[in-house]
Amino acid sequence: MPTIRILTETDLRALVPLDLAAISCVEEAFAALATKPVIMPPILRLDIPEHRGEVDVKTAYVPGLSGFAIKISPGFFDNPKLGLPSLNGMMVLFSATTGLVNALLLDNGYLTDVRTAAAGAVATRHLAREEAGVAAILGAGTQARLQLKALTLVRPIREARIWARDRARAEHSAAELSAELGIAVTAMSDGRAAVREADIVVTTTPAESPILFADWIAPGTHVTAIGSDAEHKNEIDPALVARAAPYVADRLSQTRRLGELHHAIAGGMVDPSRDFAELGAVIAGLAPGRILADAITLCDLTGTGVQDTAVATLAAARAERNGAGAPFTT
Amino acid sequence: MPTIRILTETDLRALVPLDLAAISCVEEAFAALATKPVIMPPILRLDIPEHRGEVDVKTAYVPGLSGFAIKISPGFFDNPKLGLPSLNGMMVLFSATTGLVNALLLDNGYLTDVRTAAAGAVATRHLAREEAGVAAILGAGTQARLQLKALTLVRPIREARIWARDRARAEHSAAELSAELGIAVTAMSDGRAAVREADIVVTTTPAESPILFADWIAPGTHVTAIGSDAEHKNEIDPALVARAAPYVADRLSQTRRLGELHHAIAGGMVDPSRDFAELGAVIAGLAPGRILADAITLCDLTGTGVQDTAVATLAAARAERNGAGAPFTT
Repeated sequence: MPTIRILTETDLRALVPLDLAAISCVEEAFAALATKPVIMPPILRLDIPEHRGEVDVKTAYVPGLSGFAIKISPGFFDNPKLGLPSLNGMMVLFSATTGLVNALLLDNGYLTDVRTAAAGAVATRHLAREEAGVAAILGAGTQARLQLKALTLVRPIREARIWARDRARAEHSAAELSAELGIAVTAMSDGRAAVREADIVVTTTPAESPILFADWIAPGTHVTAIGSDAEHKNEIDPALVARAAPYVADRLSQTRRLGELHHAIAGGMVDPSRDFAELGAVIAGLAPGRILADAITLCDLTGTGVQDTAVATLAAARAERNGAGAPFTT
Repeated sequence: MPTIRILTETDLRALVPLDLAAISCVEEAFAALATKPVIMPPILRLDIPEHRGEVDVKTAYVPGLSGFAIKISPGFFDNPKLGLPSLNGMMVLFSATTGLVNALLLDNGYLTDVRTAAAGAVATRHLAREEAGVAAILGAGTQARLQLKALTLVRPIREARIWARDRARAEHSAAELSAELGIAVTAMSDGRAAVREADIVVTTTPAESPILFADWIAPGTHVTAIGSDAEHKNEIDPALVARAAPYVADRLSQTRRLGELHHAIAGGMVDPSRDFAELGAVIAGLAPGRILADAITLCDLTGTGVQDTAVATLAAARAERNGAGAPFTT
């Protein structure tokens, strides 16, 4: 009888921490997107406005990987009233040769957190100045914390600032991160002050109108936009998107529709037909990353199925090696 | 800690047999599609030509049902060489109010078989003549067998014919069905002879060019087309689609793109802008079904997420009532 491996969030937190291996895994996935015949269909989206719910389904087949993941990510924004987290989800890993289920990854969104943070590190690795030491994070949630941690793995970050609409949350995250990472992390009450003299700025909010403006950003800064993954979300001033050199998309067909680029095009700041490099091409050396020390670079991340397939494959391989999780015979 | 119910194919075969309750469940789902603000996104499709694989992901939110299913259906057509079935798959049932995983339905495609057969029965119930007693099934696979069984639940079927390219398979299925259903079931070596004097014809093959022709079909016949669920599949002569009165789609936006209608439009036999009723509207009395005893009616079934959500919800409710399946604490 076929056996499926079932991995819980607890198993997966132990198996796939946010570390350099996770970052490399995601970096290779993006490179594959640029260099191999990856098949990545458009995201399936189900909206349940009656319960303030939305569900994204992502997938990708990456030649060379033994499996492909299908990730289901529900976000139900009335859940906190019930004492439940808004974001949940799971992945199913299938054999890429037979389509049989290999593993159920009941991660409640943890692997998404990791692969998203890892993508921020990959963007920084290829676009931020080598000596970048000051980071500003806009937002104070899980992804804000993970992004800062990820930055410290790829750049010599010595100081960080956190801004969030909710000052108390920013204070709380700053204190936690300061202790965890052993660097000075300061909560700021003003977004503009938070990003002043920052070498790297990462936006991680669900904002629906810009929270980061072009005239706030000094030459030489790298910006990673994480928050926008749906038509109505927008963190970055379109003028900043237009000024970026280079502007880099995780997947151009997605950022034109769902990312910061979408709003810059809608606002008439960017020609809809203008071509931009994708992160994978930059990683693979097929497109330039940062050329000038005083350029402002911007990476627009909307989330891709290749990241999910890569991190799920990594998790399942480690689980198999360690005998982790529960076998389930069907 | 949250508990998920895991149901295997064995559990699900016991919980959800193909019976009148399953047919009613699917009938209500189609009616909801016509009368409620159902949300049913386009199918996500992943093709893996390297391994002759294809994966469909379907979902739908039906107001009033406590959950929504996401169904993942892989078909890998080199599997038989490895001694594995081509079709597999599973469903995940989520709470429609919180997005939390309620149940994992490891059905290997069984529930899809049931809901597809049930849809054939629903089409027949609303489009075939009341006294229809002779059925012809083209194809001899699992769905062929289930369709005939489903027909016997809604019409006084006394005789059936089975035609398939593979004569031995047709013989085998005919013998099995004859024993199971207690009616005369004959394997036929000629498709035209099989459908002669049939009151109901059901096509269940993966054909890529027509296997059923307009001039084969007598007035008063009802035809249900099951096989076509992708652009390249085509079982029905476009002239037959054009002649049907009424032609009924499970989901018109899908049959225009994936169903028999697609080929009739492509062949210039049907105007692309012509409107047709959906099965749900016929069920709900919002569109006519069979009007004339001697009309040829045609129902074009491509498979819908509402059927999956309905049958998964039924399975999980029965499992909860019976304490079936394995609880898994995450």
